[in-house]
Amino acid sequence: MQNYKVIFHIDEMSKWKLLLANVNNMIHDLKNQSITIEVLANSEAVKFFIQNELNENDYSTIQNLMNNNVLFCLCNNSLLSNKIELNTLIPNISIVSSGVTELMLKQHEGYAYIKP
Amino acid sequence: MQNYKVIFHIDEMSKWKLLLANVNNMIHDLKNQSITIEVLANSEAVKFFIQNELNENDYSTIQNLMNNNVLFCLCNNSLLSNKIELNTLIPNISIVSSGVTELMLKQHEGYAYIKP
Amino acid sequence: MQNYKVIFHIDEMSKWKLLLANVNNMIHDLKNQSITIEVLANSEAVKFFIQNELNENDYSTIQNLMNNNVLFCLCNNSLLSNKIELNTLIPNISIVSSGVTELMLKQHEGYAYIKP
Repeated sequence: MQNYKVIFHIDEMSKWKLLLANVNNMIHDLKNQSITIEVLANSEAVKFFIQNELNENDYSTIQNLMNNNVLFCLCNNSLLSNKIELNTLIPNISIVSSGVTELMLKQHEGYAYIKP
Repeated sequence: MQNYKVIFHIDEMSKWKLLLANVNNMIHDLKNQSITIEVLANSEAVKFFIQNELNENDYSTIQNLMNNNVLFCLCNNSLLSNKIELNTLIPNISIVSSGVTELMLKQHEGYAYIKP
Repeated sequence: MQNYKVIFHIDEMSKWKLLLANVNNMIHDLKNQSITIEVLANSEAVKFFIQNELNENDYSTIQNLMNNNVLFCLCNNSLLSNKIELNTLIPNISIVSSGVTELMLKQHEGYAYIKP
């Protein structure tokens, strides 16, 4: 059985609804298969994870995806430039120093790249 | 001779003009070479293929690309969420259950990914 | 030591600020490592390199990236369709006949693809 691997890239707040629907669809489409999904947010898209600004519906969607082993990963450069403190974010988020480096490394490891 | 393979991704109606020009340019640039081109449309971009709403010029461009072996492939999740019936689409379109899965699978098969 | 390779794709003028910040971040993040970075501009994004229209700040950023071995590469189809003469561009820019072909070829050579 093939081990599918994919990294989704998002850098605009306006794309979150589409991105979350995309990831949901993939999980449904490939249930019972071995699949590794990472969502990498950089630029303004990192603001989505500020606990006090995230609505209940979206938070529930994210938690459901996390329960399906989707990894959410934020760019620390983007957190700094948006002046976002780590303790204002929802729990269980990964941080990488540079989002674009993460996107490159994962592709070098065989991940597919999708930018909704 | 290398067998070039590429999948173009489109999920916005406003990007069709650019995408079709991109694909045309690639075909001209690589004529007489072995190249496999797929265009994967999901989200609102699937509406482009509704026969009654497609203008003559764009339809002729698409038919010309099809004659050059370009495969146009639509996401069924997106057709459902946009309430589009299959019998309203132009002929010779491929349908996959999930567009993002298709994008991942093709990259795992060695296709390059381009998002205009 | 791994040789990292990445091609950044841009086809909208409005994305240049984000793209240049992304490339800068990657260079800082991976300093002292072996990394090959190419920026491929097509469609309207090629207009950014017209010498008389480029502001001093952006020009200085680009020159700094070039000094860090970032290759800036423009699509000739896009130069033609935007009626841009080669002698109006800043120096040390590469030109390829088709931008999308370049994006495909580089991915076939193992480059990661990032579209800010």
